[in-house]
Amino acid sequence: MPTSRLEAFSDGVLAIIITVMVLELKAPEGSSFGALLHAAGTGLLSYLLSFIYVGIYWNNHHHMFQLVNRVSGGVLWGNLSLLFFLSLFPYTTAWMDDTGYARVPVLAYGTNLLLAAIAWFILQAVIIRHQGSGSPLAKAVGRDNKGRLSLVLYVAGICCGLPGERFWTWLALGCYVVVALAWIIPDRRIDRIIRDHGAPD
Amino acid sequence: MPTSRLEAFSDGVLAIIITVMVLELKAPEGSSFGALLHAAGTGLLSYLLSFIYVGIYWNNHHHMFQLVNRVSGGVLWGNLSLLFFLSLFPYTTAWMDDTGYARVPVLAYGTNLLLAAIAWFILQAVIIRHQGSGSPLAKAVGRDNKGRLSLVLYVAGICCGLPGERFWTWLALGCYVVVALAWIIPDRRIDRIIRDHGAPD
Amino acid sequence: MPTSRLEAFSDGVLAIIITVMVLELKAPEGSSFGALLHAAGTGLLSYLLSFIYVGIYWNNHHHMFQLVNRVSGGVLWGNLSLLFFLSLFPYTTAWMDDTGYARVPVLAYGTNLLLAAIAWFILQAVIIRHQGSGSPLAKAVGRDNKGRLSLVLYVAGICCGLPGERFWTWLALGCYVVVALAWIIPDRRIDRIIRDHGAPD
Amino acid sequence: MPTSRLEAFSDGVLAIIITVMVLELKAPEGSSFGALLHAAGTGLLSYLLSFIYVGIYWNNHHHMFQLVNRVSGGVLWGNLSLLFFLSLFPYTTAWMDDTGYARVPVLAYGTNLLLAAIAWFILQAVIIRHQGSGSPLAKAVGRDNKGRLSLVLYVAGICCGLPGERFWTWLALGCYVVVALAWIIPDRRIDRIIRDHGAPD
Repeated sequence: MPTSRLEAFSDGVLAIIITVMVLELKAPEGSSFGALLHAAGTGLLSYLLSFIYVGIYWNNHHHMFQLVNRVSGGVLWGNLSLLFFLSLFPYTTAWMDDTGYARVPVLAYGTNLLLAAIAWFILQAVIIRHQGSGSPLAKAVGRDNKGRLSLVLYVAGICCGLPGERFWTWLALGCYVVVALAWIIPDRRIDRIIRDHGAPD
Repeated sequence: MPTSRLEAFSDGVLAIIITVMVLELKAPEGSSFGALLHAAGTGLLSYLLSFIYVGIYWNNHHHMFQLVNRVSGGVLWGNLSLLFFLSLFPYTTAWMDDTGYARVPVLAYGTNLLLAAIAWFILQAVIIRHQGSGSPLAKAVGRDNKGRLSLVLYVAGICCGLPGERFWTWLALGCYVVVALAWIIPDRRIDRIIRDHGAPD
Repeated sequence: MPTSRLEAFSDGVLAIIITVMVLELKAPEGSSFGALLHAAGTGLLSYLLSFIYVGIYWNNHHHMFQLVNRVSGGVLWGNLSLLFFLSLFPYTTAWMDDTGYARVPVLAYGTNLLLAAIAWFILQAVIIRHQGSGSPLAKAVGRDNKGRLSLVLYVAGICCGLPGERFWTWLALGCYVVVALAWIIPDRRIDRIIRDHGAPD
Repeated sequence: MPTSRLEAFSDGVLAIIITVMVLELKAPEGSSFGALLHAAGTGLLSYLLSFIYVGIYWNNHHHMFQLVNRVSGGVLWGNLSLLFFLSLFPYTTAWMDDTGYARVPVLAYGTNLLLAAIAWFILQAVIIRHQGSGSPLAKAVGRDNKGRLSLVLYVAGICCGLPGERFWTWLALGCYVVVALAWIIPDRRIDRIIRDHGAPD
């Protein structure tokens, strides 16, 4: 099976996830600047962080599927489980924001990030196994230090969030922000492979 | 008429259905782990079940239309009626979950599953009739024991839900879960036909 | 400019319109069958009617753009104004249903149907003028008796809705249902042209 | 990387933004014409203005990417930041409308328009730099007087909104309406380039 419909369906789901989060932002109660700040001060920042995360996943998905020609049933389900965890972002983002970055919601947000990252790794592994030896994706990913480091930082963020004191909660959020910043730069390994060997289709 | 726009439109509708269900999940009232469990304990499971069902329909739709070259007006309306019943999933899922899996909502959910399955069968039949004798889809589907068994299990689930006692309600839900698990494995018959004879376009 | 992105964007907008209407349906207050009937008795019928209307527009859009090769800026805006009036369907459907088919909301719904039909005619005219003499769409549409009759029935429906007595309101709704039924059969004229002369691209 | 998925993803996001705004319109409380006017009198106008703005961005995006063959990582992020600011339109539109065009919300709406325009300019610049010398987009855009004038008008609108008296607020809104009207005509420069030199792919 070609990848076109999997890409179109994923584009649709990611486009909806990235857009519906803004619907969770409640319009300010009053019409003053203070009301905007009160209602959306942190809300816009939470939205921006989750927007960037979904953008990163879309970018990486786009890059990864440049190196994929055919999909199997396993790849379809690997992709669906990634989309499932990404689809929880509006929920965990809204909860985290509504509670003013309380302890458990920040932990839930981090867990959501971690589960999405694990689903990403599983999808990558399923594709590489499906491509067999000499898989162009396997070559492009290499030892995947950046991916592994992200997992470590997500776990570090979750651990930081455990005590629940203000300082540690901000440190947890800091971990999530650092991972996002690291990934805003798209995966040059795949760009290089495409340039050197041509896209596989 | 080629199938490209029908596939794109269906991808769009299914992407929205699968994503908006998460908007029905209400964020927990408090910020504790207990509040999350209270608010989303069963909600996440209901969402997961419906997510898997929509995923199954997308997978099977994707597989089926691999064997379809041209669509007629009848196929367009067959497809729209399938999308109509799938679009009710967010509604019946939310009701079932809000009422804590009460008797009538569980029956309504099962009826929704059954109606979607019947719409699927009608769509399949319309395509096969449109393809005429030697239809590659007819060959791939064969006697369709898995599809027939699903119908039986949906009806069994609805019957189990009728008494409304806790035990029977869980049995009804069990039937729906079993069908979902059976279909997570995509339709190998179509994979085999594609491998053996090449995709028809 | 090719038509591919105009078709993709329209598919996206129509997919969202057809799906978000179900979000307007409020889940029943209780868990009994009576509560379902009370909450969704007419709601599901209203949703079905609007779902069919959006489905008809999608089908006809799909058929029409089979005969269109290139789009101009005027076609883009003609298409956007059609999408604008279709995007009001969830709003007018919800209002009509919330008020139990009261006089003004039924008039508003009919006006919405009429405006969408007028936008459709304008879009058709813009495309035909853009294609110039010998336009395949002009040949396919012909004298467009069905389209003209629909306009007459919409206006008749709006007039029936004016008195606001129960009988006349139902007659107005009857007009809208009749037009929907007449259009469920897709436009065979275009099918015939495509079969006789081949698709233009 | 080809532009197809970037276009598909942007189409999806823009389709959702343009459609979800109508969900922000609250159905009238009563069933009279007065209730409709009260609830949606200005709401429909605000929606129309934002609908036209998103339509303009879609049209211009469509035109611009006619002249783009390949995208880099920078183009992907430039595009995502444009989509981010456009995704705030439902939020600022709803706030402006809920507060009856109060001073700060009108300023926020203008700022949103300005930020989206700046993101557009950055995206344009990133593409032109990526295309290198002899960039077809650079030729098509030329000195971009219309784009510059729009920025001036947005800033003028924001300045007009600062005093907060009724007259000045309406003048600010007038500025935004004038820009929209100026852009409803799609960018003929790109049409001319495509006609003269052929599309680059």
